[in-house]
Amino acid sequence: MSYVLIRNVSVLIVPEYGDCRVDDAQDIHVHDDRITAITPTGTPPEFFPPSTGEPEPGRPEADRGRPEVVDGSGLVAVAGLVNSHTHSPMVMMRGAAEDLGIEDWFNERIWPMEVNLTAERVRVGARLACAEMLLAGVTTFVDHYFHADQIAEAAIESGMRADLAPTYFSSTGTEAAIDTARDLRNRSPRITASLGPHATYTVTDDDLRRTADIARAEGFRIHLHAAETDDQTQSSIDRLGATPIQVLERTGVLDAGALIAHGCGIRDADLPILERYGDRTTVACCPKVYLKLAMGTVTPIKGLQSKGVRVGIGTDGAAVHNTLDVWESLRMVALTQKQREQDAEWMNVSDTLRLATRGGAAAAGLADEIGVLEPGRQADLALVDLSGPHCQPVHDPRAALVYSVRSSDVVTVLVAGKIVVRDRKLTTMNLDEILANAKDLAHTLVDLSKGGAVQHYAP
Amino acid sequence: MSYVLIRNVSVLIVPEYGDCRVDDAQDIHVHDDRITAITPTGTPPEFFPPSTGEPEPGRPEADRGRPEVVDGSGLVAVAGLVNSHTHSPMVMMRGAAEDLGIEDWFNERIWPMEVNLTAERVRVGARLACAEMLLAGVTTFVDHYFHADQIAEAAIESGMRADLAPTYFSSTGTEAAIDTARDLRNRSPRITASLGPHATYTVTDDDLRRTADIARAEGFRIHLHAAETDDQTQSSIDRLGATPIQVLERTGVLDAGALIAHGCGIRDADLPILERYGDRTTVACCPKVYLKLAMGTVTPIKGLQSKGVRVGIGTDGAAVHNTLDVWESLRMVALTQKQREQDAEWMNVSDTLRLATRGGAAAAGLADEIGVLEPGRQADLALVDLSGPHCQPVHDPRAALVYSVRSSDVVTVLVAGKIVVRDRKLTTMNLDEILANAKDLAHTLVDLSKGGAVQHYAP
Repeated sequence: MSYVLIRNVSVLIVPEYGDCRVDDAQDIHVHDDRITAITPTGTPPEFFPPSTGEPEPGRPEADRGRPEVVDGSGLVAVAGLVNSHTHSPMVMMRGAAEDLGIEDWFNERIWPMEVNLTAERVRVGARLACAEMLLAGVTTFVDHYFHADQIAEAAIESGMRADLAPTYFSSTGTEAAIDTARDLRNRSPRITASLGPHATYTVTDDDLRRTADIARAEGFRIHLHAAETDDQTQSSIDRLGATPIQVLERTGVLDAGALIAHGCGIRDADLPILERYGDRTTVACCPKVYLKLAMGTVTPIKGLQSKGVRVGIGTDGAAVHNTLDVWESLRMVALTQKQREQDAEWMNVSDTLRLATRGGAAAAGLADEIGVLEPGRQADLALVDLSGPHCQPVHDPRAALVYSVRSSDVVTVLVAGKIVVRDRKLTTMNLDEILANAKDLAHTLVDLSKGGAVQHYAP
Repeated sequence: MSYVLIRNVSVLIVPEYGDCRVDDAQDIHVHDDRITAITPTGTPPEFFPPSTGEPEPGRPEADRGRPEVVDGSGLVAVAGLVNSHTHSPMVMMRGAAEDLGIEDWFNERIWPMEVNLTAERVRVGARLACAEMLLAGVTTFVDHYFHADQIAEAAIESGMRADLAPTYFSSTGTEAAIDTARDLRNRSPRITASLGPHATYTVTDDDLRRTADIARAEGFRIHLHAAETDDQTQSSIDRLGATPIQVLERTGVLDAGALIAHGCGIRDADLPILERYGDRTTVACCPKVYLKLAMGTVTPIKGLQSKGVRVGIGTDGAAVHNTLDVWESLRMVALTQKQREQDAEWMNVSDTLRLATRGGAAAAGLADEIGVLEPGRQADLALVDLSGPHCQPVHDPRAALVYSVRSSDVVTVLVAGKIVVRDRKLTTMNLDEILANAKDLAHTLVDLSKGGAVQHYAP
């Protein structure tokens, strides 16, 4: 059993609706993997059971049975951020496909580069990605990529929580990836798996139908790209006689429960369809990518929310987003949604923080487990330092979190009650080794000399 | 005389046109306030004159006459960023006016708050602003605010370079502010002054005409807000029979030489006018603000550049931008310009870096002095660390600078040859004292109990 007491911290409270608030001078009591209480500072830690007398590896004998105390003075505790859609190993291609439209990005760079993927290279990339995310207070990532078993190993090693969808195209077969998802399910309490058809334009209706059948039968959710741009939606109508959302409905994917990446091309006419599956549908919004690829529009969050569809915030892969920085991403969500709706009062600081935490928890399929700081929840949280000159003075800590904070302001991070970042350093992995490995292998991933491509973009 | 040798650094070379590049293993030789040479690492520092034998305050006797060596290994030297438009003391209102449209932002919050301005409060805010900017590698700021003499004192103390435009409205008189500009001109080699009429909608044509006459007669440039939104442009046409740009032409402001803040409402028909004054006109783009206030459009940089008008990047005041982070701002320029032009190849990494450095130098009226790392220029530069997990591996350092770097990656900063930030710490000011002062006074600035306002927004 482990006990952590975070003492004298300010706590960001994110209610299901309405304004967030920050409660100062709180103690957060963590017992094993869960928050057991949040009390005014100084309340005796009566919630801790007496020591079992059993050895506690790594702690001095005198401290056994006592809480490990983390001084939270001057810090704000925030539910660990969730990266609701990413391809974590693509950090290995950071900066290798710049200033390109979506077609050239896929066909000239990314899909030709991905012929170079190996288990080792994916593992090295995923370790780097976990390091970057944990140090930034991202405690859960929702991933969609190849060699997902390697990503699972990296997540487990790092102490992160992950939902992993092994990616497949119809052109390369569906079975191996689905079997990987089955294998991953019980690998660790912190790992869940989803089924990962790539997109409505790279997986046939028949394969989507079979995916949905398996998902329903075996209790998987389905994580896939759909309606990424309005061009894709138009092309889907022309090619298949249906919008991507209609394809997801007719193939049973929406009924099985879907996490839809991007959805910038979701049209008003799609909203009533999504409403029917609102209890099991989430959409991940990654706006830096939509601007960078000049996709022409951003996720219609207001419309989705009006139909009961939950929305999380993601980074997509670093081959286009360049970072896995969810703070950057949530800020971009606030800014681009205000712009989209031509309403500066829309997507206010409270709603933005709610998407990044509760919304992300829903996207990860863990709406009842993470995303909120309250007793009974998993102890996934970040302590954030607002004392820097870019945050001070703080008239509104919620605004500071949305519009001023940098990932480098994250000081301490817990996942499932374990301290994985302490004083801005990883406790679980050796960062220098991770960076050295990534540098060594980086050139192998961007090598285009072999020719070929894993897929062709022609939605 | 002082000598600084930055040894074994990578140098970002930003040509006037075309692709930027990074030259590895360079030594930057700095003599007094200027770069005297950039040579491959190991070239003897023959460019340093022999010691004069005169005392060098603050250096051990044995080192006198020798260069102070800064180890640049693993770092990238970038010309110091320029914040091309800001109201630096507004850091004191950070987070105090969130989720509001432009009208409420001005009329319900900012202009009522500004009745609380005093010399001391402005000074405290400006010191904090200088600290934030210098630590982030911003070496020059182009400011527009009240009590500009206090801002000058803060800039001088901090070691920063600044162009200061004392703000005035017609309603409160023009003379005092213009006299302040005159006083500031020769305060320090690092301080220049501009005339600062607030905007075409708060300063009458007559006052703009008089401002332009004084500017031409006394050699000032004019820094003002114009065509901030398209609504302002339409309202100007309705009210004055002319677009804001036409007002600037007919009053002689363009002829005198103007720095136009924002210009999101500049219309195609305005471009031929601006072209006539392209040699002396710059526009400052601050896109985070345009999205946050849901202004509906962003600065038409492509059109402006096609007419020879130079563009710099700014943050505006932190009462709306929340930070004075020019890295964040330049990233937003790249993203929003790609979105605006619906062209992912537009505003590429090289062009973005050029705006942030050469463009900013032009906005500061210092196009021949700063903004480029080459012999003869002022030694204003930042050393940036790309070794963090959010930047690695680095396939393209230019992309890392535009899309991955955080202000916290800035390690060392020089302004006019003086090391003002060393190992992420200010050398010129006590940050703890600055933060404490700002905290103490913050509440006084947001006090609305007195009633009144410095101005009313009704463009």
